[in-house]
Amino acid sequence: MVTYIFGHKSPDTDTITSSIVMANLERELGNEDAKAYRLGNINKETEYILNYLDIEAPELIESVEDDAEVILVDHNSPSESAENIENAKITKVVDHHKIAFNTAHPLFARLEPVGSTQTILYKLYKENDVEITKEIASLMLSAIISDTLLLKSPTTTEDDKKALKELAEIAELDYETYGLDMLKAGTDLSDFSIEEILALDAKQIDFKDVKSIVNQVNTASIEDVLEMKDELEKGIEEIIEREGLDLFMLLITDIVNSNSQVLVLGNAADLVEKAYGVKLEDNTALLEGVVSRKKQVVPIMTENA
Amino acid sequence: MVTYIFGHKSPDTDTITSSIVMANLERELGNEDAKAYRLGNINKETEYILNYLDIEAPELIESVEDDAEVILVDHNSPSESAENIENAKITKVVDHHKIAFNTAHPLFARLEPVGSTQTILYKLYKENDVEITKEIASLMLSAIISDTLLLKSPTTTEDDKKALKELAEIAELDYETYGLDMLKAGTDLSDFSIEEILALDAKQIDFKDVKSIVNQVNTASIEDVLEMKDELEKGIEEIIEREGLDLFMLLITDIVNSNSQVLVLGNAADLVEKAYGVKLEDNTALLEGVVSRKKQVVPIMTENA
Repeated sequence: MVTYIFGHKSPDTDTITSSIVMANLERELGNEDAKAYRLGNINKETEYILNYLDIEAPELIESVEDDAEVILVDHNSPSESAENIENAKITKVVDHHKIAFNTAHPLFARLEPVGSTQTILYKLYKENDVEITKEIASLMLSAIISDTLLLKSPTTTEDDKKALKELAEIAELDYETYGLDMLKAGTDLSDFSIEEILALDAKQIDFKDVKSIVNQVNTASIEDVLEMKDELEKGIEEIIEREGLDLFMLLITDIVNSNSQVLVLGNAADLVEKAYGVKLEDNTALLEGVVSRKKQVVPIMTENA
Repeated sequence: MVTYIFGHKSPDTDTITSSIVMANLERELGNEDAKAYRLGNINKETEYILNYLDIEAPELIESVEDDAEVILVDHNSPSESAENIENAKITKVVDHHKIAFNTAHPLFARLEPVGSTQTILYKLYKENDVEITKEIASLMLSAIISDTLLLKSPTTTEDDKKALKELAEIAELDYETYGLDMLKAGTDLSDFSIEEILALDAKQIDFKDVKSIVNQVNTASIEDVLEMKDELEKGIEEIIEREGLDLFMLLITDIVNSNSQVLVLGNAADLVEKAYGVKLEDNTALLEGVVSRKKQVVPIMTENA
């Protein structure tokens, strides 16, 4: 019976590469039926990485069957997981997010508050004496660069830095040059419709009882993205109506200068003003130094809700 | 600021020794303010161990203050934890139970489906190159023996066996002789009132919407315990009334022959008959081969509820 390994919906680089790297680890440790899957489309950044390394994307699935054996990477919340996950058997979790699920059985769970899931997988390879090949090292370091914005995000830990440096040697890559190219590839929005941009990295996160979606797009130029402001607002209003949301936050994150412009709509928009001490003008404000949804949005918004 | 480290209420050997061993690990890794606590009285088995090793019991607490820094061992469910745990900051969890809590922040969580929390701590010591002294080894092996009933419980894994054997060498202990003495010390109920016996290792576990308490006492002679049957039933009825329970199961576990006699009261008593295919006579039945609440009670009862 196959062991399904996948990350979250609206997959990013950490989710996609972690599913591949975890599947490899499982197979190396004797679970021959371990296979990586994905729950959504590959983004531009991940596409750049997979092309660069000449690796195929994992197979797309939407749901899992009853009693399917599942390993979750880079997420644990059922709302970000496959359809029917409630009826699957989760045997392992490797993740760096807060705990947002319960289980009926004891399981193997390895969660650490580090920048990237791959930093944990890097440790698991070492602990289990499994070889980190050049290809695996490249996948691991790509995700660390992606999640920490080249070690600049406040989510970055000493463990991430140490892992990235060791992995760069194995991968024989100048990680700063490669990393900036990779991140820039991820900011290319030209192929996407407004609807697609608003779904690219959208996470449903309820701040207490404020039903919200927080989406994040990286860019090398906030101005370029704000040229689409009217269309983005129209699209967001449709999502708020359709999903019955109180709040939609679009974080437009400047990966070069490490700030985010936030575009906010919904009845609870003033929660953003309260949480960050800013005044929204035309639904938008600059959040200085904010680049991490997990570390600089979720706790602060939850606290103020 | 102190880091509180504790296991579950109604503490058993794994909970008490894990809090001591985890506190030592934290201090060895530089967290000088790490301190072990306990949430209830030391049982006879643990008393035997602490006396044997000449180690003091951790300090008793009932609740934690707001924003207290907390490390949970051997449990994660708020219902089994300190009062006010909802308002504490849980930074780490080391446990071998199912996941029954959520967090607002990412944290370090190390859960594995092994027999004893100490088997995980044993790995953490090795991974972090922290010395396992003779005393630490003795504490670790005591908990593995306790939770696996000398490797006979179905919760026993290869990891537990490997750890126990290596620890016995470090501790310079004949673990089989020591283990049987230790387990037998734990079956001594002579000092306890009926009320105390019924609270010794009681866990509130809801099987779907069947509100239940499952208590377990180990014994070398089921008959001896059943001599108190009338008083036990009276005590259980009072608890059912006071707590508004649907079900109370008292597992009287024969540690020599690896069976449990179950004493069952409450409106949902027939759930036990259905789950195990037994007929209760005078509220009791023999559950052959059942010794593990976690592995042989919780999943089966939940499935049939």
